[in-house]
Amino acid sequence: MADWKNTSELNSFKKLGEVKPVDLKTAMSGENGAKRVKDYSIKMAAGLSYNYAAKAVDENVISALKELADEADLAGKFEELYNGAVINTGEKRMVLHHLTRGQLGNNINADGVDKREFYLGEQKKIAEFANKVHSGEIVNEAGEKFTTVVQIGIGGSDLGPRAMYLALENWAKKNGCFKMEAKFISNVDPDDAAAVLASVDVAHSMFILVSKSGTTLETLTNESFVKDALKKAGLDASKHMIAVTSETSPLAKSSDYLQAFFMDDYIGGRFSSTSGVGGAILSLAFGPDVFARFLNGAAEEDKLAAKKDIMENPAMLDALIGVYERNILGYPATAVLPYSQALSRFPAHLQQLDMESNGKSVNRFGEPIDYVTGPIIFGEPGTNGQHSFYQLLHQGTDIIPLQFIGFKENQAGVDVDIQGSTSQKKLCANVAAQIVAFACGKDNENRNKNFKGGRPSSIIVGDQLTPEALGALLSHFENKVMFQGFVWNINSFDQEGVQLGKTLAKKVLAHETDGALAAYSALLNI
Amino acid sequence: MADWKNTSELNSFKKLGEVKPVDLKTAMSGENGAKRVKDYSIKMAAGLSYNYAAKAVDENVISALKELADEADLAGKFEELYNGAVINTGEKRMVLHHLTRGQLGNNINADGVDKREFYLGEQKKIAEFANKVHSGEIVNEAGEKFTTVVQIGIGGSDLGPRAMYLALENWAKKNGCFKMEAKFISNVDPDDAAAVLASVDVAHSMFILVSKSGTTLETLTNESFVKDALKKAGLDASKHMIAVTSETSPLAKSSDYLQAFFMDDYIGGRFSSTSGVGGAILSLAFGPDVFARFLNGAAEEDKLAAKKDIMENPAMLDALIGVYERNILGYPATAVLPYSQALSRFPAHLQQLDMESNGKSVNRFGEPIDYVTGPIIFGEPGTNGQHSFYQLLHQGTDIIPLQFIGFKENQAGVDVDIQGSTSQKKLCANVAAQIVAFACGKDNENRNKNFKGGRPSSIIVGDQLTPEALGALLSHFENKVMFQGFVWNINSFDQEGVQLGKTLAKKVLAHETDGALAAYSALLNI
Repeated sequence: MADWKNTSELNSFKKLGEVKPVDLKTAMSGENGAKRVKDYSIKMAAGLSYNYAAKAVDENVISALKELADEADLAGKFEELYNGAVINTGEKRMVLHHLTRGQLGNNINADGVDKREFYLGEQKKIAEFANKVHSGEIVNEAGEKFTTVVQIGIGGSDLGPRAMYLALENWAKKNGCFKMEAKFISNVDPDDAAAVLASVDVAHSMFILVSKSGTTLETLTNESFVKDALKKAGLDASKHMIAVTSETSPLAKSSDYLQAFFMDDYIGGRFSSTSGVGGAILSLAFGPDVFARFLNGAAEEDKLAAKKDIMENPAMLDALIGVYERNILGYPATAVLPYSQALSRFPAHLQQLDMESNGKSVNRFGEPIDYVTGPIIFGEPGTNGQHSFYQLLHQGTDIIPLQFIGFKENQAGVDVDIQGSTSQKKLCANVAAQIVAFACGKDNENRNKNFKGGRPSSIIVGDQLTPEALGALLSHFENKVMFQGFVWNINSFDQEGVQLGKTLAKKVLAHETDGALAAYSALLNI
Repeated sequence: MADWKNTSELNSFKKLGEVKPVDLKTAMSGENGAKRVKDYSIKMAAGLSYNYAAKAVDENVISALKELADEADLAGKFEELYNGAVINTGEKRMVLHHLTRGQLGNNINADGVDKREFYLGEQKKIAEFANKVHSGEIVNEAGEKFTTVVQIGIGGSDLGPRAMYLALENWAKKNGCFKMEAKFISNVDPDDAAAVLASVDVAHSMFILVSKSGTTLETLTNESFVKDALKKAGLDASKHMIAVTSETSPLAKSSDYLQAFFMDDYIGGRFSSTSGVGGAILSLAFGPDVFARFLNGAAEEDKLAAKKDIMENPAMLDALIGVYERNILGYPATAVLPYSQALSRFPAHLQQLDMESNGKSVNRFGEPIDYVTGPIIFGEPGTNGQHSFYQLLHQGTDIIPLQFIGFKENQAGVDVDIQGSTSQKKLCANVAAQIVAFACGKDNENRNKNFKGGRPSSIIVGDQLTPEALGALLSHFENKVMFQGFVWNINSFDQEGVQLGKTLAKKVLAHETDGALAAYSALLNI
């Protein structure tokens, strides 16, 4: 059994604070900088690599991080997790999302079944359903093929699947496996559903209702909205809807749906992209084979996360460097900057993944802690961000660590040569230039044009954003967040912080308010 | 002439730090909380109001902020700005974006013309052009009407216009003034242009090339990409393109464009939504009248920003509270949380507006400063964010001030009643509930379910997101950022921090690299 201690109780953490800080500007200058770029790199799955040359670390810092990894027993804790320990202490649940894409440890039995078999079974059911939709075996009331799939879900049922869909849409079109266009309805704002419904041909649309509990307010409201629209169009809603939910939810056996696919309480929403939550929409949009390739990429990356040596475990190393930046260097945020338009919503997914998992102020036993935990996560794709908030990143008064992502090749395979280079080369040149600009800066006598440098970044580099590469990327960040939660001794798998707002919103709607809540209700004319 | 002093030199700033902090949880509890909600509210234009009841301020803090506003002469500095002083010291330029929507002060002559007349003239030229496109006087080579308009631009030529388009798209559809669908190409990633071009009918598309200098790398590259596509489709590119640029740019008199519309050096990219940069696409998409209504909303809000009394000047008060939170309370970020799906990209626009303007480490004279400036800005629409990063906002270890935006009515006019209330009521109930949950928290013996409260927010409330309300919102934040720049004694109108990356990217593309830059070039296969 792993020993769960607060970060501040670890001797190795105290030692980490005593290691001499690295002068990043000096370290990255000249041939030493070139050597770091070559040496400070770890292989990931699907041909990706994690390069941390431009992080403010050296052999001494890394050595201290290794000690921290050992003392906090990060590898042992992950092993307990994937062997079925009740890691989610708040909700007293196992944490099994890794099992949706592979098996790292023991067989895990729960709810009377082998859980790996259960997840595989749901994946297979979804694949069969998707194949029938694509082949025309499952059709609408008029006997016509479905052309569009619309996911109704919020939070983890929206952000991850949406980011994954956008990430692979152009790749699928280029590679002949684009089957159905996908859309997403998430917000309880009725203008969200209205706009999406106006943009699709409902008669040829399949709707996926995604809610683990089957009670999510936004999702049920939007389901009603969609059912109204189907009814108004003279259509039978039950011929247009499927559900992804838990077997115990009210949706599970409802005749309102063509079919229901299952997840369970061991898959948190923000970790559910590789379950049926992502599986149904991605299998319908791109075919089950593409979804399987995506899972394979994640499973391969998970294997690396199970390695004990941080030099072979990019997620663990990335996590530890993040802890160093957050708790020792005192940086409040991390910017995620993918140089790939396909990853335009990947930062929004990581924002949920990270901030909902590790934005906690008590340890896994419910005791207060005396150190900071999860940082703010934000980001936009490059080069767009360069023309937006990079000014602050380069010359602002706070240092914000950066997480770049880049690919050598684009997805669509169309490009243009101008001023002696392609767009893709320009894109890559920009990310290379930014890393060095942030790390090394540039002195200028005009201090308004001076760049201090010393601003740390890492980059994940790949050949192309394929399904496997996307799966590996997703797994990397899921496991990074998990390892940081282990270091901080918090429970990364519950989200009690979302409950109070829900409770108060119900009071407002029931007009059971007083004080400020009543006054705000009046202000908003509720 | 205003007296430009560093914040730390102001006596009123020192006094502000000595004011007793407000216990927000106590202040917002019981009937006192209700009283604050009623009293702590300022009228804005277009029926909006700025409510700061849930900010950690009281009469003593507000009084100290008034003194700070007076000593820093914020009203005087704005007056100098709109009367044509060279406020952009770095680039030695006037700052005239307010003049694109109204005139607050003296006539301003530059480049041989009256500048208000110049901007009005361009607005009129755009209106005439848009009317001709809508009426079918300007058509494609086949004599057919244009149906789609595609903006090619990046940074301020993309984020603001895109956010404004999305904000009004459903309103325009509902109100019978939707003329043309708009799309945007921004990223140098060739997959961005490829995806947009694949989604439109190029034969019926009008492209707007937007670049003040006419030399923006991404924009020229994407122009080539589009011209290639038009050529491949057998079309004459010059019949499909217009330009928005400065009169001195290489694009200004090119026969490559049907027509060119002008802005000038006195309009920064991030402040250009009310110039031709936003004007061309919004006038084509929704008609010139809608664009004019948007400008009117901004002009009315600008008039409030010119008021000397902070209790009549919501932008100035908002700015000062932000300074208090950043420099006295030490908060690193602000989250922008619009409860309106139509404002889905408004936070991304504010992220540029704020972080590019005020992410500076030297004062307006190029001297180092010893206090923090612009915060991190991020956000997503509610209720989506509630199911994503709100966990950290409620229970994380850092306090992050919040900027809510909400409307009593939705735009599309379609809704559904479920569990006794409409979606719109649920949306409003959620924002009311969140404000109180953040401010007041809730004690729980289970500390994992405990909410400390004391997390400050403000809300801008309106009846509906109309063109006028959007203009007022935009103006509010532009002026807020400007006032904060005045307090911090920085130049909010240049962006030298973006230059080094550009220079290094050119070196990479020319293969003039060594050290780390050469190594990263190799890593990315450039």
